[in-house]
Amino acid sequence: MGEGSQKSPVVLKFGGSSLATPERVRLVAERIARRQKQGDPVVAVVSAQGDTTDELLVRLHELAPDPPAREVDMLLATGEQQSAALVAATLGTLGVSAVSLTGWQAGIATDPSHRRARIHGIAPGRIRRLLAAGHVVVVAGFQGVNDLGDVTTLGRGGSDLTAVALAASLGGTCEIYSDVDGVYTADPRIVEDARRLSVIGYDEMMELAALGAQVLQGRAVEYAWQHDVEVQARSTFVDGPGTKVRPGTGTERVHPVTGAALDRTVARILCEQVPDRPGSAAHLFGALAQAPINVDVIVQSPSHLGRTDIAFTVADEDAPRAEEIARVAVERIGGGQVSRDADVAKVSLVGAGMLSRPGVASRAFQALAGAGINIIAITTSEIKISCLVRREDGPRGLQTLHKAFSLDED
Amino acid sequence: MGEGSQKSPVVLKFGGSSLATPERVRLVAERIARRQKQGDPVVAVVSAQGDTTDELLVRLHELAPDPPAREVDMLLATGEQQSAALVAATLGTLGVSAVSLTGWQAGIATDPSHRRARIHGIAPGRIRRLLAAGHVVVVAGFQGVNDLGDVTTLGRGGSDLTAVALAASLGGTCEIYSDVDGVYTADPRIVEDARRLSVIGYDEMMELAALGAQVLQGRAVEYAWQHDVEVQARSTFVDGPGTKVRPGTGTERVHPVTGAALDRTVARILCEQVPDRPGSAAHLFGALAQAPINVDVIVQSPSHLGRTDIAFTVADEDAPRAEEIARVAVERIGGGQVSRDADVAKVSLVGAGMLSRPGVASRAFQALAGAGINIIAITTSEIKISCLVRREDGPRGLQTLHKAFSLDED
Repeated sequence: MGEGSQKSPVVLKFGGSSLATPERVRLVAERIARRQKQGDPVVAVVSAQGDTTDELLVRLHELAPDPPAREVDMLLATGEQQSAALVAATLGTLGVSAVSLTGWQAGIATDPSHRRARIHGIAPGRIRRLLAAGHVVVVAGFQGVNDLGDVTTLGRGGSDLTAVALAASLGGTCEIYSDVDGVYTADPRIVEDARRLSVIGYDEMMELAALGAQVLQGRAVEYAWQHDVEVQARSTFVDGPGTKVRPGTGTERVHPVTGAALDRTVARILCEQVPDRPGSAAHLFGALAQAPINVDVIVQSPSHLGRTDIAFTVADEDAPRAEEIARVAVERIGGGQVSRDADVAKVSLVGAGMLSRPGVASRAFQALAGAGINIIAITTSEIKISCLVRREDGPRGLQTLHKAFSLDED
Repeated sequence: MGEGSQKSPVVLKFGGSSLATPERVRLVAERIARRQKQGDPVVAVVSAQGDTTDELLVRLHELAPDPPAREVDMLLATGEQQSAALVAATLGTLGVSAVSLTGWQAGIATDPSHRRARIHGIAPGRIRRLLAAGHVVVVAGFQGVNDLGDVTTLGRGGSDLTAVALAASLGGTCEIYSDVDGVYTADPRIVEDARRLSVIGYDEMMELAALGAQVLQGRAVEYAWQHDVEVQARSTFVDGPGTKVRPGTGTERVHPVTGAALDRTVARILCEQVPDRPGSAAHLFGALAQAPINVDVIVQSPSHLGRTDIAFTVADEDAPRAEEIARVAVERIGGGQVSRDADVAKVSLVGAGMLSRPGVASRAFQALAGAGINIIAITTSEIKISCLVRREDGPRGLQTLHKAFSLDED
């Protein structure tokens, strides 16, 4: 192998919105070309263009309302394959020799499952050879191949995971490009003086991703954390340093809190008069887990006459199904009414600094109370505090917490 | 393997027009399902839906006017992959268990070339196993994989070739479905009393395909001939026997002529005053072959004072390039003017019966002369006679020949 192959490669990932029009594809190709001229071996990972994935699903569901997951993957994987070919061909017009690869050509092996497969391993031989020969390698994101030779997809946001996993396998770094120029202390559309973070910890980023910060996908951050991959979130269209995600940032932090988030796509399910005996909650949440439905904030009221109220939140889209499952489960264990409340929102604070500083929670509650915002439920983890509030209070709640913890100050 | 796998499979191929709308996809799925219920193991080969391939090319050329052939194949192959997934999923709604396969998953190995790869071999193991397990296998047509693991495509009409090659490899028969219910003695849009042929020979079908009969693709017929595969051309939307293509039909024929064809997409290149010495024609046609441009009817006038006029026809789309190449070549060998004439059409008669019956050509010339149609040039093969006429005379020429050889009579 030549000298060039000694340098560790950089994996650049571009999302669907960055590729939505021919003009944008050209801008992406120019960015890739500039990066290669800086001397780094470059792998680009691309998503499907614009709304391609959704459009393919509409076409499929018109023909088959409940299609086999295997065929869904076979269909959806074409979106990223098209992007890869288009970007590689466009790079050619800029004098950059580029080769596109599908997931299977890139050696991305997954478990047998469809729609949300897990990456089992990567055989990077072909990518290494292409990089060593001076090519830019453009990989179709979001997809892999299982042991049967079937095409699998990695779930929504899976291209981030493709990029991080390739960076891990190649011993390189990863840059995730999108419309946004980094990770902010809160959504700038809601909090005017939100500040771009220059650095954030893996743990904090995972919490923020789970809370709806769409800059980086949670599973990708988790993979980066496990494999020590440095990830950077940057803007496709504006030059700038973006935000670096890496370990060990929390402990040296001045602020106990790194960022705040608002999730308005939650609903609350209330199960009344559940018998307060061992196994009740296990039965209820076991049924939901099997669905599978992700349950978030869980609040159980103090027992009264051997009965208790259990409330929990789920994603808006899962709420009708969750209510139905809960109703069946609660009836079986002899409980009372089950109801659903969509008029809620979740405001959260995230920060590895919380670990060493007690009192963050009480300061948050005081700030919300001072703004006249009622807290319906609370949940905390080592580095996160979430408060359930009325949906109309959500934006003001986020602004209040952002100010209370001086997140606008560097 | 179970009993079912003992039966030889049938390979059904559906073209893009048969899959252009969701309604048509449903009709195709229903036809496949009916066929499977008759007890045959079924492989379906599908093209890209409607104008998908052309639309993808437009998108590509907007970004890269002269894209690498490898990336063109990578892009175009997605059209057939989408069709395969959609048809397989639709079969599921009819209670038919179906599995879609890309070219590489179906084991279709090609030579290294792109855009017009040749099938080198097929490893039908996976298809056999799926058929034995009772599945319908839906294969993305038009594509394969080369030794490098790159996606290749087989050229326009390549899905016919996929279907025939799979039938050969599986020891089955092949049915090619399209908007037309078989092969006709002439284009019914031009010749009113054109008659559907119940049987045609491989050789005749190849000539007709080369002359623009779009029911079956020429390379597919050639492959079927070489591998003794029985091919049937049928309508996707109307039940009927269609046309069978098979060997040995010509010799038993009452008619010396099987069909007639008109090609209005030709142009004529005239090279004047070419020195009549050894190597002149070789130089001219060598340069064209290298382009590569297919040359059809060639006419060389009698030599006069050591010089001769050479005229030949090419496809309309190749004409400007052919003229340019001819001009350079003729200049180098010291010839005269080169000009191009698009105002021509080619009427042809095809029939294995010609072999044993002299006089077909002269009857054709008499018929055209009787209709007042001037013949610009003539070319013949063992089973074909082509006459170049003015483009406006084309349709009438076809009708005249159809009548003169009583092709409307069974």
